[in-house]
Amino acid sequence: MPHPLLKLYESQSSPNSRRVRIFLAEKAIDIELIPVDIAAKAQFSPEYTTINPLNVVPTLMLEDGTSVGEVPAIWRYLEEVYPDKPLLGVDPKDKALVAMWERWAEREGFATVMEAVRNWAPGLAGRALAGPHAYEQIPALVKRNEARLGHFYRDLNKRLETVAYLAGDQFSVADITAVVAIDFAVEALELDLPEDLPALRTWYATVSVRRSLSA
Amino acid sequence: MPHPLLKLYESQSSPNSRRVRIFLAEKAIDIELIPVDIAAKAQFSPEYTTINPLNVVPTLMLEDGTSVGEVPAIWRYLEEVYPDKPLLGVDPKDKALVAMWERWAEREGFATVMEAVRNWAPGLAGRALAGPHAYEQIPALVKRNEARLGHFYRDLNKRLETVAYLAGDQFSVADITAVVAIDFAVEALELDLPEDLPALRTWYATVSVRRSLSA
Repeated sequence: MPHPLLKLYESQSSPNSRRVRIFLAEKAIDIELIPVDIAAKAQFSPEYTTINPLNVVPTLMLEDGTSVGEVPAIWRYLEEVYPDKPLLGVDPKDKALVAMWERWAEREGFATVMEAVRNWAPGLAGRALAGPHAYEQIPALVKRNEARLGHFYRDLNKRLETVAYLAGDQFSVADITAVVAIDFAVEALELDLPEDLPALRTWYATVSVRRSLSA
Repeated sequence: MPHPLLKLYESQSSPNSRRVRIFLAEKAIDIELIPVDIAAKAQFSPEYTTINPLNVVPTLMLEDGTSVGEVPAIWRYLEEVYPDKPLLGVDPKDKALVAMWERWAEREGFATVMEAVRNWAPGLAGRALAGPHAYEQIPALVKRNEARLGHFYRDLNKRLETVAYLAGDQFSVADITAVVAIDFAVEALELDLPEDLPALRTWYATVSVRRSLSA
């Protein structure tokens, strides 16, 4: 269903934007996408700084002009307004488990890949943390995060030996965060999924064919 | 009101446990607290590993034996079951803004202090990240996080020039995370609040006298 007044500022090359685009596609929510040209550093323009002073995408702009940043906050708003086909869980226990596993996947997987890339990529020298403030890269973080990603894959495989989806028997935002993290690791760090983790590979194959993943 | 079947595994010296204890006190939820002796590394015992394989506190154990880790997931469960005196927001916009500001306070404040301490404290050598896996400390992170904390205080002051509480006009989990981060920075890093940030100092004084803070 189209929503005439919500707008999402986002970028096709931003993994955080992709987390929101997949969520929108899964729930068939149709809102206006406004591209922010991060290759041209448009997120630092005065115009965008008034929309999101953290200079990051995505940002959801509400009908009244309020900006909502941070992917889980954007998801929370959209799930409240569009409760059909829930992706944040249904009952209290389910909501808690989705929140727990999504957060685990973000910290151990998504943030791990991002931190490796930001502390390594030559184009991000002096910009090792997203946001308005400048920080030098710390090369030791690249190695730490590659080791961490190895643990993430193994721990994820262990979890997926007992459940079909990360938070239980339903696809949820926990799966979105995990698959976007893995795709970004493959793309940006050229780290393929290990061969010896069959439960992880089965889950990845199942999730990857969902139409929403190409959003 | 006492709840006969929920249990919280926690530690008095754990800032993450304190985030949950303050939440419980604000809402007058009375559940059993089970101390985990982290000074004696009891979070790595086989018994506790079956409760939380990440070897961290706090963990909320539900009536059916399900373990819920991760502070925001524990909060989500408790707010669903005890909706009175909401701390995660009321309407969709409010819920989104609380989620956004809480997350910002956690990343820029709470996680910043924790990362500085874990990469500095002699007792945490070889344990630079919480969890079951061993990582060496990276000394460069101590300086980066001290700089980051300076930005956190300044950005927080700027926000509090326009609102009474971090997420708007009501006390919320965003305030809990911010105040626990500041108290831990004072205690563990001996970093006092800067004198030249009056809005931050006023908010800190107002929040610090709440009875829940001593929980």
